[in-house]
Amino acid sequence: MTIVAVIGDGSCSAATARLAEETGRLLAEKGAAVVCGGLGGVMEAACRGAKSAGGLTIGILPGRRRQDANRYIDIPIVTGMGEARNVIVVSSSQSVVAISGGYGTLSEIAHALKQGIPVVGLGSWQLAKDGWENARAIDHCSDPAEAVQKALALAIE
Amino acid sequence: MTIVAVIGDGSCSAATARLAEETGRLLAEKGAAVVCGGLGGVMEAACRGAKSAGGLTIGILPGRRRQDANRYIDIPIVTGMGEARNVIVVSSSQSVVAISGGYGTLSEIAHALKQGIPVVGLGSWQLAKDGWENARAIDHCSDPAEAVQKALALAIE
Amino acid sequence: MTIVAVIGDGSCSAATARLAEETGRLLAEKGAAVVCGGLGGVMEAACRGAKSAGGLTIGILPGRRRQDANRYIDIPIVTGMGEARNVIVVSSSQSVVAISGGYGTLSEIAHALKQGIPVVGLGSWQLAKDGWENARAIDHCSDPAEAVQKALALAIE
Amino acid sequence: MTIVAVIGDGSCSAATARLAEETGRLLAEKGAAVVCGGLGGVMEAACRGAKSAGGLTIGILPGRRRQDANRYIDIPIVTGMGEARNVIVVSSSQSVVAISGGYGTLSEIAHALKQGIPVVGLGSWQLAKDGWENARAIDHCSDPAEAVQKALALAIE
Repeated sequence: MTIVAVIGDGSCSAATARLAEETGRLLAEKGAAVVCGGLGGVMEAACRGAKSAGGLTIGILPGRRRQDANRYIDIPIVTGMGEARNVIVVSSSQSVVAISGGYGTLSEIAHALKQGIPVVGLGSWQLAKDGWENARAIDHCSDPAEAVQKALALAIE
Repeated sequence: MTIVAVIGDGSCSAATARLAEETGRLLAEKGAAVVCGGLGGVMEAACRGAKSAGGLTIGILPGRRRQDANRYIDIPIVTGMGEARNVIVVSSSQSVVAISGGYGTLSEIAHALKQGIPVVGLGSWQLAKDGWENARAIDHCSDPAEAVQKALALAIE
Repeated sequence: MTIVAVIGDGSCSAATARLAEETGRLLAEKGAAVVCGGLGGVMEAACRGAKSAGGLTIGILPGRRRQDANRYIDIPIVTGMGEARNVIVVSSSQSVVAISGGYGTLSEIAHALKQGIPVVGLGSWQLAKDGWENARAIDHCSDPAEAVQKALALAIE
Repeated sequence: MTIVAVIGDGSCSAATARLAEETGRLLAEKGAAVVCGGLGGVMEAACRGAKSAGGLTIGILPGRRRQDANRYIDIPIVTGMGEARNVIVVSSSQSVVAISGGYGTLSEIAHALKQGIPVVGLGSWQLAKDGWENARAIDHCSDPAEAVQKALALAIE
C-alpha cells in the first residue's frame, strides 16, 4: 500500500479544506493511505476525505496525548517530540502533497526534498535561491486530481 | 482499536520467538493492533503471529529506510531517529508486553513506566532500587495468554 | 551569553566558506557563542572563525559519534537523530544566520521562523507563497558584518 | 575536555542533592564538563557543584524554553522533544553518574548501556533478568569521590 503525506496548516480556510478533503478522498479511492500530522485544518480535512472513501489514515502527533488526534485518524502515533515529528511525517511517506501551509509545512517540504521524496503542491510555497526560481523542486498542480495523480506517479519505493 | 506494544530483542532464541508469536496472535484475535520497533527477533515474531490471525501491525523504525521493516509490518513509520524511536513505540501504545529483551527493551520499559503506561513482562527485566524489589512496576506473567489478558485489561485510554 | 546559529551546507565553495568564517569570527568578537550542526562546510568555517577570535562553539551532531564533529567544535552534542537534529540547532539559538544552503538549511530556516526565532540571510533562500515575496521572513543582508549586527540586535531572550 | 553525564530526579531529598553537588564539584575539579537534563533536583545540584569549582555545565532541555534551565547551566540546549532528550543526554557523554533516580533516570541508564557508555551509580537502580543480578552493568559506588574517579577512568573516547 502506498503511503502519501498530506501536509498543511492546522487551521485553514473553507476553500483550502475543500482541496484537502478532495485530495484525501482521491488518494483513498486509488488505494493509498494518508499520513499527516494528525491535528486539525488541512490534516483533518484530508483524513475526513480519506475516510469518506474507506481509506486508511495515520496521524503523527507532536504531543503526548493520543486524544489530540482528529476524529478521522485510524492510527495515532504519539511522538511527544513537538516539531521534530514533522521529519517523521514526510520520512514515512512515499510522496507528499503540500496544500497551502505556513512555516511548519515549509519545514516538511524541505525535509522531504532533502530526502529525495517528491513533493507536489496546491497553492503552496515557492522557493528560490540566487534569483533562480526553484520550480522543479515542488511540482505545482492546479487541482486535487492532478496533485493525486502526480503524487502516486512519483511515489518512491 | 486498542494498540499494544510488543517489545524485545532484535534477535532472539526460538523459544522466545514462540512466546512473541503467540503473544501477537492472541492480541490480534482479541482485536488489538500491535506496535513495535519494526525489525527482527521478537518484533518480527510478534508481527508474524498478529498477521496469522488477521491483525494490524505498526513498525516504528529507527533508520531511514521503510525497507528495513520486517515482512509482517503493515504500517512502517520511518523515524531516522535511532534509539529515540523507542520513546515513540511505547508512547503510541496503550499497554506494553515486554518479552525478555536487552538494554533497548529496558529503555522502553522505563519510558513506558515514566509515562504511566502499564507494562507486563514475559521473562523480562526485574528492577530494584535501595534493595526494594520493584515487583509492582512490571507485572510479570507466566505465559502469553496471561500477558495478553493483562495487557488488554490494563490498557489506558 | 547570546547563542547564534550559523546554518548552511556541509560542503561549500571557498567564497561561501569565507562568508561563514567571517561571520563566526565577528560573532565571537561580540561575545556570542556559535551553535551549528557540527559538521563540515559552512559549519566548520563558521567554527574556525569563532575559534580564531576565542569564541565558544557548539555542534549538534546528527550521528552517533562525537568524532564526527569538525575540529573547531568545543561542545559536541550527540543526538543520533539524523535530520531531526536540525530542529535542535535552531531551537537552541536566539537568532539564526543562514549562509546559502540547500534543503537541510531550508528546513532549519522554516523551523526557526515557525518558532519565532529571527533569521538573517547571506545569499540564502527566498520564499514566496501565492506570488507574495516573503521578504520580511528572512532578513537578507549584504555581508557578514551586517548579518552579525542584525542577528545580535534581533536575538530573542 | 571529558564530558560526564550526571542523571537523577528533577526533585530530590537534601541528602541526594548533597551527593549530586559533591559529584559536580569533583568533576569540575578534575576538568570534566557536566551534561545533564538541565532542570532541578539532582541536575541543579550537580551543576551548582560544578560551577562552585569553575566547571562547565550543559543542559539538554526537554521543553521549548531556554528559560527552563536551572540557573547553573552555561549552555542550554533546547530540544522540545520531551523524554526523547534523555537519549541525547547520555549520547553526548563519555560516562554517566546515576544518582538515585526514577524511571526517567532508568531510561537514561538503559540508553547508555545500550550504547556502551559506562554507568556508575550512587544509590541507583539495580537490574536483573532471569534471576541474574546484573551487577556488572552499573558500577555501584559508595560515595561521590569513588563515582567520579570511576566515571573518569571508564570514560570512552
